[in-house]
Amino acid sequence: MGSACLSWRFSHHRSAFFISSLSQNWVSIALIAKGPFMSVPSTKTDISIDVTSDVTTGPLPASRKIHITGSHFSDIRVPMREIAVHPTAGEPPIRVYDPSGPYTDPDVTIDIAKGLPRLRRSWIAARADTERYAGRDIKPEDNGFVESESHAVPAFPQSHAPLRATGGRAVTQLAYARAGIITAEMEYVAIRENLGRAEMRANAKRDGEAFGAVIPDHVTPEFVREEIARGRAIIPANINHPEAEPMIIGRNFLVKINANIGNSAVTSSMAEEVEKMVWATRWGADTVMDLSTGRNIHNIRDWIIRNSPVPIGTVPIYQALEKVGGIAEDLTWEIFRDTLIEQAEQGVDYFTIHAGLRLHHIPLTVDRVTGIVSRGGSIMAKWCLHHHRESFLYEHFAEICDICRAYDVSFSLGDGLRPGSIADANDAAQFAELETLGELTRIAWDHDCQVMIEGPGHVPMHKIRENMDKQLSICGEAPFYTLGPLTTDIAPGYDHITSGIGAAMIGWFGTAMLCYVTPKEHLGLPDRDDVKTGVITYKIAAHAADLAKGHPAAKARDDALSRARFEFRWEDQFNLSLDPETARAFHDQTLPKEAHKVAHFCSMCGPKFCSMRISHEIRADVQKEGMAAMAEKYRDGGDLYMPRNNGK
Amino acid sequence: MGSACLSWRFSHHRSAFFISSLSQNWVSIALIAKGPFMSVPSTKTDISIDVTSDVTTGPLPASRKIHITGSHFSDIRVPMREIAVHPTAGEPPIRVYDPSGPYTDPDVTIDIAKGLPRLRRSWIAARADTERYAGRDIKPEDNGFVESESHAVPAFPQSHAPLRATGGRAVTQLAYARAGIITAEMEYVAIRENLGRAEMRANAKRDGEAFGAVIPDHVTPEFVREEIARGRAIIPANINHPEAEPMIIGRNFLVKINANIGNSAVTSSMAEEVEKMVWATRWGADTVMDLSTGRNIHNIRDWIIRNSPVPIGTVPIYQALEKVGGIAEDLTWEIFRDTLIEQAEQGVDYFTIHAGLRLHHIPLTVDRVTGIVSRGGSIMAKWCLHHHRESFLYEHFAEICDICRAYDVSFSLGDGLRPGSIADANDAAQFAELETLGELTRIAWDHDCQVMIEGPGHVPMHKIRENMDKQLSICGEAPFYTLGPLTTDIAPGYDHITSGIGAAMIGWFGTAMLCYVTPKEHLGLPDRDDVKTGVITYKIAAHAADLAKGHPAAKARDDALSRARFEFRWEDQFNLSLDPETARAFHDQTLPKEAHKVAHFCSMCGPKFCSMRISHEIRADVQKEGMAAMAEKYRDGGDLYMPRNNGK
Repeated sequence: MGSACLSWRFSHHRSAFFISSLSQNWVSIALIAKGPFMSVPSTKTDISIDVTSDVTTGPLPASRKIHITGSHFSDIRVPMREIAVHPTAGEPPIRVYDPSGPYTDPDVTIDIAKGLPRLRRSWIAARADTERYAGRDIKPEDNGFVESESHAVPAFPQSHAPLRATGGRAVTQLAYARAGIITAEMEYVAIRENLGRAEMRANAKRDGEAFGAVIPDHVTPEFVREEIARGRAIIPANINHPEAEPMIIGRNFLVKINANIGNSAVTSSMAEEVEKMVWATRWGADTVMDLSTGRNIHNIRDWIIRNSPVPIGTVPIYQALEKVGGIAEDLTWEIFRDTLIEQAEQGVDYFTIHAGLRLHHIPLTVDRVTGIVSRGGSIMAKWCLHHHRESFLYEHFAEICDICRAYDVSFSLGDGLRPGSIADANDAAQFAELETLGELTRIAWDHDCQVMIEGPGHVPMHKIRENMDKQLSICGEAPFYTLGPLTTDIAPGYDHITSGIGAAMIGWFGTAMLCYVTPKEHLGLPDRDDVKTGVITYKIAAHAADLAKGHPAAKARDDALSRARFEFRWEDQFNLSLDPETARAFHDQTLPKEAHKVAHFCSMCGPKFCSMRISHEIRADVQKEGMAAMAEKYRDGGDLYMPRNNGK
Repeated sequence: MGSACLSWRFSHHRSAFFISSLSQNWVSIALIAKGPFMSVPSTKTDISIDVTSDVTTGPLPASRKIHITGSHFSDIRVPMREIAVHPTAGEPPIRVYDPSGPYTDPDVTIDIAKGLPRLRRSWIAARADTERYAGRDIKPEDNGFVESESHAVPAFPQSHAPLRATGGRAVTQLAYARAGIITAEMEYVAIRENLGRAEMRANAKRDGEAFGAVIPDHVTPEFVREEIARGRAIIPANINHPEAEPMIIGRNFLVKINANIGNSAVTSSMAEEVEKMVWATRWGADTVMDLSTGRNIHNIRDWIIRNSPVPIGTVPIYQALEKVGGIAEDLTWEIFRDTLIEQAEQGVDYFTIHAGLRLHHIPLTVDRVTGIVSRGGSIMAKWCLHHHRESFLYEHFAEICDICRAYDVSFSLGDGLRPGSIADANDAAQFAELETLGELTRIAWDHDCQVMIEGPGHVPMHKIRENMDKQLSICGEAPFYTLGPLTTDIAPGYDHITSGIGAAMIGWFGTAMLCYVTPKEHLGLPDRDDVKTGVITYKIAAHAADLAKGHPAAKARDDALSRARFEFRWEDQFNLSLDPETARAFHDQTLPKEAHKVAHFCSMCGPKFCSMRISHEIRADVQKEGMAAMAEKYRDGGDLYMPRNNGK
């Protein structure tokens, strides 16, 4: 793990800042709360800013980044991670899905002040349906009226004029798919989903229960196009976020995970948020939501998007509320609309919009144990009740669609009435809102907008399946995107686990993307370790779901790791695991010597008792004698392998 | 959390030992590997031994131990933990199941050199079907031929002559149940399972999917008797472990969890194993298995059993193998039989016996990815192949039953062929052995022995249900006791989570007890933190299963905690959680001030945005107006709550 330093000079700013080793202060909330930027009094107007910031770079152990090129589109280079296996195994390396972007590629020099390469720019330009324009002016309220410049996060140094659709066109992947066009993004995700494997033979045994999902042996660009055209999958890819590596969210593809990051009014910072994004994708986050609610929201988001290899989602109502001083009833459609355009121009790939919560739903929540727990939902409920009016999100939904189709911002229709406790699961309020989400899905589709649907929340195991079944039928198989669900309320501090159980199950049933929950859920803001724990837990849930659905390539990694385990290839076990560092560290706590990395035993049984070594001896014995001979000797009448002369 | 010190003088031992603060060295494997006992050269034959050892004592936060007395048996005092709720809530305290024994009772003085009170002694004596006898002599091989006394763990200072059944009688709970006798143990567990709640009203709404389990609204002693008589539940309660507080394992009762402890040939110690047992039960372990494989096995086990408030399980083949120097083929029925008697006399409550692995099963494992991963299974497979004979455990199973019925040692029929990888799940070897376990269950029942069945292992989600269904039908609904199962192989370091997912699911489907997996699984020996993490993870899985099965009292704790969350009673949230210490510590990382413990917001949203506070405002608004009036105003034709004059 290396680090990339950035240092630049800045001339249009009036104060001097020095940011040093911010990532090392990541867990130091006290420092963050004070603001990590130290002001240096100065009256000069042309001054210099030194910014030094670490982001985590470098490959994972035994891993190298490979790229697979497209056939329809020659400039497509789809990244994958190849994990080498020890030569004695005589096995090819294992390819795994890799959302970590260039940060894990030692051939790329990272400079977060420049941002990532804009790899989709030429694809978008080639479609000749967009125009570059000046864009909206940045206003003081965009950054929460930062009181003094000593608290200001500097603007991202590179300025890019935004793109938008020309002549009211829809520049969405859905519009192209419906028109029969296979985009570069579609071929990209097709290659990516295959994990580089060749087409499975038709007679290869598939093993799984997919609950109606139809996962092909081999994903073709045409299959991707069809799934998008049907609304059953989305590629969140704002034309103003050309840095992102395309990925697909849908029931017939690999289950994805999202990690939330973001500052809040209590704690804040900028460089640490970029590092959180890099860190989350390093461990496997497929998308990242920036849920910042403090000051500097606009500038922090710029830094994140320009450096993000994965789609970025937001909840625009959070920033809109910030603009009206946190008073929900002061929100207006105009302020919200302006915020949507602001974020669409920056390149946000999907918006959580809580347009499904309607005025008449609110009384349904009054007898709940935990009321309305969605922040967006409660803001809108407050607004609706105060004005005694229908939600402006619902009333202006068609206009929101017009904005989204001009930038290809995907919808993530928010579940503002999701249950916040086991007691409230699957209640009338929740399912009433889901009906509205189904109605909004059809409106969005009518506008050629891509849509996914957010889901709960807190749900006991026996009520999870109903959530999935209802969502599929009510929302026309639009991808489901759930938070957990948490399967019990009694374990704050361990809600990555209470929710990982529910996430694995609902992922199996058909949820396309799982929003992670960290150990700090309900208690505090996640730090660096919490983000990693949340991501790894959700990679487990997503992978367990892929296995159970019968994804044709999912089991390859399990099998490779299990073979390594059986053959005492300790290094391979570590390297093939989701978290090689932790696996190695745990092993070394008991058996630290390098010699133990090749030992044919572990600390669990010790050298005398190792069951797997005994299995090898058994295998050798059996092979010496020959399976056929052994089977013959043991066969007695119809009783397979029953010894002839030695039966009891 | 306090500590109990012990210090005693010892005169029949030839060396002097000084053990200090061992529990503090628990995680220091280096020290443990060297052996924590420092020998002091001495030639005296009458010398003194000072032993000072800490075990964790004291109540959990806001908790007090209460006791509910029996009605049939007046000397029954069933312990429960009552968690106080802040007076402003106007709620009664919450009662939770409490396996932690007297260690969490400040009214009890702990002296681990004396052992716990022998609470079942009078109940056993009253049945007048046992005799006290001299017992088997302790042999050098019982403690693994400890080479020098400097490595010896002292014998437990209190000596109790063992009990056994008189005249070949069965002194098992199953025998009594079949004879129509309700024992004190049965009434004890009936009270315990009810968690002190009064009988649920017949019209109370039950919510769950129990997959054929029949959980009554109120558990009566007669219900317990019936379930035991049918073989559908067991009370593991060796007559030589009268210290244990009775508990029941069965599909129609609360889902239980087991924690494994034990030293191995690589690391070892004694006092730390007692503390591990105390520590595991403190966080919720319902039984503990002592899987020690190193030296001093006999003496360490004595220390554990005499101090254990929960049933202790073992795998006797581990100790038997130790007695023959670790050479599987040198095992004999006689050595094994002698070990069973040794352990039955000590008070082991259940034996894992791998009698289901037969000679003709072995070739079925040769093409597996991970062969035989059960230690007991691989030992027996090696023995069978070497001698080319049927397993002596299988051939002598009736004799093993005769031993178990004389002490009421329950069977835990081992799954020696459980899958050790996703690839091997539900294969022919596994299910062939399960058929034999069904056959052995019936033999054990014929001998009035209590039986549970061990299950896998590594199983992808879509193959879990088949394990449960087959086990129920093949083994006549004998309780299932599973390890996990792990739902993927790719996350060493996180196998408490990969397996917690499977455990919650199989618990829901009907597994009666879940054997925990710690983060160190596959990598090393669990330390103190790992044991706690494993126990909490499995309490989550068991509780999630109880909720999903519709246990009538399970949801009370979720609801109480959620109400506390909604009402910003932070202290109550911490206290009602499975791990109050961690919940509080996580909260305080972001908001350390005491004032924040009553704040109506948390660090996640900050003061401006709190969705739950907004919910309260909404509730106040609605209540001001009146629900009925509001509903009336919003009703429009058939559309519930649709505003009359404000529709879109």
